[in-house]
Amino acid sequence: MNGEFDLIARLRSLAESEGVAGLAAGDRVALASGDDAAVTVPKGATATSVDAVVEGVHFDLATAPPRAVGGKAIASALSDLAAMGAEPGEAYVIVGIPEDLTDDDLLEVGGGLVDVAREYDVAILGGDVTRAPVLWLGVTVVGHAGDAAELVGRAGAQVGDALAVTGTVGGAAAGLELLERPELAEALDDASAAGLRRRQLEPSPRLAAGRALASSGVRAMIDVSDGVGADAAHLASAGGVRVEIVLECLPLEPGVERSGLDPLELAAGGGEDYELLAAIPPGRLDAARDAVATAGTTLTEIGRVLRGTGAVLRGKDGAERSPQGFDQLGRSRAGSARA
Amino acid sequence: MNGEFDLIARLRSLAESEGVAGLAAGDRVALASGDDAAVTVPKGATATSVDAVVEGVHFDLATAPPRAVGGKAIASALSDLAAMGAEPGEAYVIVGIPEDLTDDDLLEVGGGLVDVAREYDVAILGGDVTRAPVLWLGVTVVGHAGDAAELVGRAGAQVGDALAVTGTVGGAAAGLELLERPELAEALDDASAAGLRRRQLEPSPRLAAGRALASSGVRAMIDVSDGVGADAAHLASAGGVRVEIVLECLPLEPGVERSGLDPLELAAGGGEDYELLAAIPPGRLDAARDAVATAGTTLTEIGRVLRGTGAVLRGKDGAERSPQGFDQLGRSRAGSARA
Repeated sequence: MNGEFDLIARLRSLAESEGVAGLAAGDRVALASGDDAAVTVPKGATATSVDAVVEGVHFDLATAPPRAVGGKAIASALSDLAAMGAEPGEAYVIVGIPEDLTDDDLLEVGGGLVDVAREYDVAILGGDVTRAPVLWLGVTVVGHAGDAAELVGRAGAQVGDALAVTGTVGGAAAGLELLERPELAEALDDASAAGLRRRQLEPSPRLAAGRALASSGVRAMIDVSDGVGADAAHLASAGGVRVEIVLECLPLEPGVERSGLDPLELAAGGGEDYELLAAIPPGRLDAARDAVATAGTTLTEIGRVLRGTGAVLRGKDGAERSPQGFDQLGRSRAGSARA
Repeated sequence: MNGEFDLIARLRSLAESEGVAGLAAGDRVALASGDDAAVTVPKGATATSVDAVVEGVHFDLATAPPRAVGGKAIASALSDLAAMGAEPGEAYVIVGIPEDLTDDDLLEVGGGLVDVAREYDVAILGGDVTRAPVLWLGVTVVGHAGDAAELVGRAGAQVGDALAVTGTVGGAAAGLELLERPELAEALDDASAAGLRRRQLEPSPRLAAGRALASSGVRAMIDVSDGVGADAAHLASAGGVRVEIVLECLPLEPGVERSGLDPLELAAGGGEDYELLAAIPPGRLDAARDAVATAGTTLTEIGRVLRGTGAVLRGKDGAERSPQGFDQLGRSRAGSARA
């Protein structure tokens, strides 16, 4: 390690060479990285979210490559903007660096951040680096919309709404199991196993689908970070309604059924799929499905909004399961939740 | 520890009871804490900065009370907004919580954050909590201005400008020495020793003075976090100029001269004073001093801007010292620097 200022210069140079350091980020950015603060001139409303990941809590460098750690940190933060229907704009990154992390690994972490920022046209405008006992990242992301009414919160689901989810679920949790217990892959073909690991290591925030849903008149939206069951419970609580999910309707990631694990438990309780869960008036469901298809993914109806409180996962046989999710102060491996 | 959601609820309730949870923060805030993202509608330009502090790197709970840790984390982040001349608006807080931190201590950390947020009219709109091996905080602050031209960056100092600093310097570094070596306090009266410790534990961001300076036509500004010498070097580098400081002109915090430590080393190299250092056209110096006085503090001319590069600290005898500052990847106890 050659000292902090040299390291910052190398990280900034990496971001600049990839065009994500803000200077090329368009007319919203007035002053980028390197000053006391970055200056932007937002047009309309902004949505801001912060997300932190900690080595040994959210990831393990024995199973997650450093590049994936950096990429996933910003991707999971951007997923919160997707859940608002916001257009991603800027990011600010804190990196805590342990003594034993090599410079090469650190630059891989930075490379992962930059890859994802470039993919979604996000300008990394500032940050802070510090020594820390383990590797950790704190990412603040700022998204934009013409005005606040275009953004979709968690509250607003109404009795009678359909509940729908983008893409597929269960893959991220299955991928984590495969990373931790490689022998599970024997039940799968190589492509399926690789696909599941990728769902865990390289999540894709559903930014285009989120904007498509917001424009389709969805009433409430949340991203699936804690698990479909737990996140449905958040929607229910914010809206003062009850949410019922039909387990067999959950769109499973390919391979999840053959992984030897309980597919419904992975799908409903696993978390980290970073899909979007939305409450949609039934009359708008077809239009929403078309809009999401244009954004490159699918939308599957998985349940409905009822009178009452809480969320319930119901099997076709009528049996209920209560939502499972991650509570990161209680479990050793867990996502993060908003304060 | 009763689980994350309960803890978040307690911290949020603390912020709400003190009126800093965003709901009472005025018409800029459309959706506060508790959703995937907070929604604001900025009027004009925004200045955004992130700052992280880590137990064992930036503070030690053996000498810093938890309330001071929380307060200083947000105060030092707000100092970056002061250095831009921005009006403080919103904050987002990441808290990494070790297993052995008691709930009471954690609520003290939160209380410190809330105290400072309330003092400067800042709305805490969101955050993230996670398990971590040590206590750490990451604070993102957003400030505002009518337009980007009202904000002052680090670049812009011109040959012939006066260099001036608000308030007093050296106190924070002396306070840290007193906390770590209590026997040093024997050379001081109780009030002076307490004042020095307070400078270390409870810094005051110079927000009003920063706005006053920005309105007075200063050309470049930075906050004193790394030390007057190191921060002057940042100003010099950003402006493509040389900065010369006359050591004997530095306005010392009362008690620093009698602490038994080298007062000039503390003042020039110590850091964490969170005063503002500005390059000011000589003709505007009196007006700037008056404006800063109205904002409740002093402005002292300590040097000038010359042709050349780098920063130099010169004694009245003509002897030069090179700037000393903190490089946090190289030293065990250090502030944070921007990426």
